Amino acid sequence: MSRQAKVAVVLSGCGVYDGSEIHEAVLTLLALDRAGARARCFAPDIAQRHVIDHRTGKETKESRNVLVEAARIARGQIEDLKTFDAKEFDAILFPGGFGAAKNLSSFAFDGANCQIDPDVARAVKAMHAAKKPIGALCIAPTLIAKLLAPVEVTIGSDAGTAKAIESMGAHHTKTAHGDVVVDRANRVATSPCYMLDATISQIADGAQNTVTAVLEMVGT
Amino acid sequence: MSRQAKVAVVLSGCGVYDGSEIHEAVLTLLALDRAGARARCFAPDIAQRHVIDHRTGKETKESRNVLVEAARIARGQIEDLKTFDAKEFDAILFPGGFGAAKNLSSFAFDGANCQIDPDVARAVKAMHAAKKPIGALCIAPTLIAKLLAPVEVTIGSDAGTAKAIESMGAHHTKTAHGDVVVDRANRVATSPCYMLDATISQIADGAQNTVTAVLEMVGT
Repeated sequence: MSRQAKVAVVLSGCGVYDGSEIHEAVLTLLALDRAGARARCFAPDIAQRHVIDHRTGKETKESRNVLVEAARIARGQIEDLKTFDAKEFDAILFPGGFGAAKNLSSFAFDGANCQIDPDVARAVKAMHAAKKPIGALCIAPTLIAKLLAPVEVTIGSDAGTAKAIESMGAHHTKTAHGDVVVDRANRVATSPCYMLDATISQIADGAQNTVTAVLEMVGT
Repeated sequence: MSRQAKVAVVLSGCGVYDGSEIHEAVLTLLALDRAGARARCFAPDIAQRHVIDHRTGKETKESRNVLVEAARIARGQIEDLKTFDAKEFDAILFPGGFGAAKNLSSFAFDGANCQIDPDVARAVKAMHAAKKPIGALCIAPTLIAKLLAPVEVTIGSDAGTAKAIESMGAHHTKTAHGDVVVDRANRVATSPCYMLDATISQIADGAQNTVTAVLEMVGT
């Protein structure tokens, strides 16, 4: 890959319990920049499923918008996922956080029977059809499993989530910190990140290794 | 420094325009973890000065709490700055973002005549009196300038901010990406980060270099 890779990063809010996991999102953007890729952030322009007070873990009465909150991580440089065009990108990446399972899909509530946000589904299917690589961290591989089964993914070692992935018709491989599962036929790379009890350095490793695996598949 | 350093990281919300700059905060936590230090996050339990829609840059009608929003960056593991005890820490660090100049102080509105949040002032003065190192990124060095003048700090090259720092009685040194100004007598290390037009890799360098400078001063 000689020219600068263009990579879409799809966010789902801002905060692990109701949006994108912030460390995973930032460390994905860092790994892309360090690799010389150009990242553009996207999020769907939809209401968050709910708002969680991250200090208490309790739901609040507020309502927030996924795109508006995700703009905090992107320092304002973010686009509506509805405008995503697979032709403009070499790869797409999904950091984790409950937002992937609450806003980008209903996995947190419906498990294997989850619905996927239509713009997320369109983006993933378009990249897959164009044989462009897809990366996903933490709980976000559940989106890919639902959309691209029979694909091989990992979310680490959580038995319930692994079982849900298998019941979607996808294949789950158990992994540890920093491991990346690469399904080369489907050009999908996944890593557990905070689905395991991890340090922030281990998250940096997982994001870095996933970005490396994804960029290695660009153009192959 | 043989034993594990204990470092307080003071956050000011969650998002560059009304809280902590997220990349600076995350990359400070990463640099501390990579260096083997133990970080504990703090924020004041106060209302944000205002809430900014990070997509449009405009103020919204919402009200949010600095500690509750900062908990998003800290994944819930955060303490009220009122409970900060300098005896428990080897160093203290302030990532930047407008929250440092809007919530931790009134610098964004009042410049050199700004007020400093009382818990921030208490924490900084206690660490300084105990000869424990203090680090600050981006706009946060203005807090240190106000509290510890005549101290030497940097915010990069912004002429207006530099002038305000000088008029507080502190000394400003112009710097570029990744540079750290160390005032060894006061045990203060500062770096410009996003006060310059920077890439996220340059922010990682600035945070890393500041953490290194701070940890080198622990116990000296």
